[in-house]
Amino acid sequence: MDYKASGVDIDAGNETVRRIKALARATFTPGVLSDIGLFGGLFHFDAARHADPVLVASADGVGTKLKLAFMTGRHDTIGADLVNHCVNDILVQGARPLFFLDYLGTGRLSPDVAEQVVTGLARACRENGCALLGGETAEMPGFYADGEYDLAGFIVGVVDRASLIDGRTLRPGDRLIGLPSSGLHTNGYSLARRIVFDTLGLRADTHVPELHAAIGETLLQTHRSYLPVVAPLLPPLAGSRSSLVGPGAAVVGPGALDPGHPSLIKGMAHITGGGITDNLPRILPEGVSARIDRRAWSVPPVFSFLQRSGDVPLDDMYRTFNMGVGLIVACAPDAADAITGTLRAAGETCWAIGELVAGNRTVEYF
Amino acid sequence: MDYKASGVDIDAGNETVRRIKALARATFTPGVLSDIGLFGGLFHFDAARHADPVLVASADGVGTKLKLAFMTGRHDTIGADLVNHCVNDILVQGARPLFFLDYLGTGRLSPDVAEQVVTGLARACRENGCALLGGETAEMPGFYADGEYDLAGFIVGVVDRASLIDGRTLRPGDRLIGLPSSGLHTNGYSLARRIVFDTLGLRADTHVPELHAAIGETLLQTHRSYLPVVAPLLPPLAGSRSSLVGPGAAVVGPGALDPGHPSLIKGMAHITGGGITDNLPRILPEGVSARIDRRAWSVPPVFSFLQRSGDVPLDDMYRTFNMGVGLIVACAPDAADAITGTLRAAGETCWAIGELVAGNRTVEYF
Repeated sequence: MDYKASGVDIDAGNETVRRIKALARATFTPGVLSDIGLFGGLFHFDAARHADPVLVASADGVGTKLKLAFMTGRHDTIGADLVNHCVNDILVQGARPLFFLDYLGTGRLSPDVAEQVVTGLARACRENGCALLGGETAEMPGFYADGEYDLAGFIVGVVDRASLIDGRTLRPGDRLIGLPSSGLHTNGYSLARRIVFDTLGLRADTHVPELHAAIGETLLQTHRSYLPVVAPLLPPLAGSRSSLVGPGAAVVGPGALDPGHPSLIKGMAHITGGGITDNLPRILPEGVSARIDRRAWSVPPVFSFLQRSGDVPLDDMYRTFNMGVGLIVACAPDAADAITGTLRAAGETCWAIGELVAGNRTVEYF
Repeated sequence: MDYKASGVDIDAGNETVRRIKALARATFTPGVLSDIGLFGGLFHFDAARHADPVLVASADGVGTKLKLAFMTGRHDTIGADLVNHCVNDILVQGARPLFFLDYLGTGRLSPDVAEQVVTGLARACRENGCALLGGETAEMPGFYADGEYDLAGFIVGVVDRASLIDGRTLRPGDRLIGLPSSGLHTNGYSLARRIVFDTLGLRADTHVPELHAAIGETLLQTHRSYLPVVAPLLPPLAGSRSSLVGPGAAVVGPGALDPGHPSLIKGMAHITGGGITDNLPRILPEGVSARIDRRAWSVPPVFSFLQRSGDVPLDDMYRTFNMGVGLIVACAPDAADAITGTLRAAGETCWAIGELVAGNRTVEYF
């Protein structure tokens, strides 16, 4: 008996590593010192660029959105969902990404599928200026159904301590600005699939007139990254050559974007599993609640379609899905115009969706 | 229909987070600025302690060793396997761990099992001086069999650039020192399980006389961390108060352990999936091969038992299992005595298992 007889194909593993290497190399930023294949990935940390650096790290998965990839045979977008999810999770604390690593667990390794998955990871890493520094591809016979896999991601970014965004100074009267999501992002898929495929009996390629698309296509819409539109609002790193970076700098004004300056943004919430209802409170200090005006934005058709088709109570919708708002920015009242001006200058839509009030770290809708 | 009806239990998730928080807090080192539950974990990087820092990162899983945890119902050791595996993967490049994050994917979330898994992670993090900075626990209905889960880990450590260990200077004549493994570590489990449970028909609690233990117990032996015994051989970080740290410092001598000094160790290989045969070449430069003297150490009984029971060719054994050598240290001939002296002073067993020769990055056994 040998290893292949036990269900592990070392040659498939080596072939996968060969293909991944080329994809990963295309993401390498100047900090990367190593090639793929070493025990650890090496990233040179340029201490001169940081006054007092804080590393911000996050681990995430894509949840059962993966089932849509399995159903449609489209494996080259799910990696971008994961990278963008991770980028947003550290962006909300003011951090810019440095590097990303992935974990791909499979029952039987297909170099083709692995290559497609990593193609999506690598594309999104490049778009976010983030190096794909390494990862692990595990073939685990008997763990996953044929053709299925799980995918997890890990990101590390950096922010100067003075520019850290943590919601600590939020107080009643502060404003909430909502940014549109690009679809379900990566949350609520267990409920959405139950409604679409079990209750309605649709197939992934069923065209849904009110969505102007096949349902599978709508549900596979890539989780967007908010880095490109939010970065112009973040103070530059201490060692950066110019304090005037990005298209929004002129709108915000130079003073607010000095290196090591506190950000104009006091808090940000990435609206993931748990919706606005569970995610916004994560950044609220004691004694502060949020009031959200649901009339401030139009809920995209996919959410109305799911709500009606599944007869889902409204409260559950707002506790499961992002309902069209993927990121919430919180700021002092006198900073709201500069922030929305900068976002709009970067081509972004944004809505004044509510404000903070005295309360017990809850979200009230009206 | 609501989210719970779709198979996702938000209350179980919240209960799990509550239990994990307390376990993670006990691992927090002075660098940790955040509590569990923020979007990203915050780690203050003390730049004054580093001359020219390189971050070293690795992602890993535990493979099908997880099946042993499922079979025995023992979930509180697999986390230590994962952390120690990750610690070793960055240690071989000279890095000390800063922080760790985990990803736990399940079909149906059991707060009890999650707590046991994280108990193992947290214990090993504490033992390695590594903060458990965050993680993701995903409930994915339909992805995993009942009672099963997958577990991945991500680690970040740091090393001064001058003290980086990468095998670049290895050349013919250099010596190889082997350190004992504590069992199968986390590799070869698909083959081992096939032999033990399918071919031999044993149960996890079957006592195997030549192993003096139940087979399940032997196979669950925790993957050891080499950090405690190797750390005294690493130059201290640039900002450390004393260059004489650890029990081995007196043996190695102060000169070799100055901050920012190249390590006495020229290369290290963590013997994981692929055995000595596939892992040692990962650190060999062009034009260099390794000759390993198999008579230099006694292969532990568990490997002989698997080989005989599964009628596994010897080459496959050395390409699948660690065969009793979990870490290989490579050094110049004149450094070998100081290194073995320091290891022995730290209570470690070590063997002169071979040397480097001219060749094409292969391993020859004799």
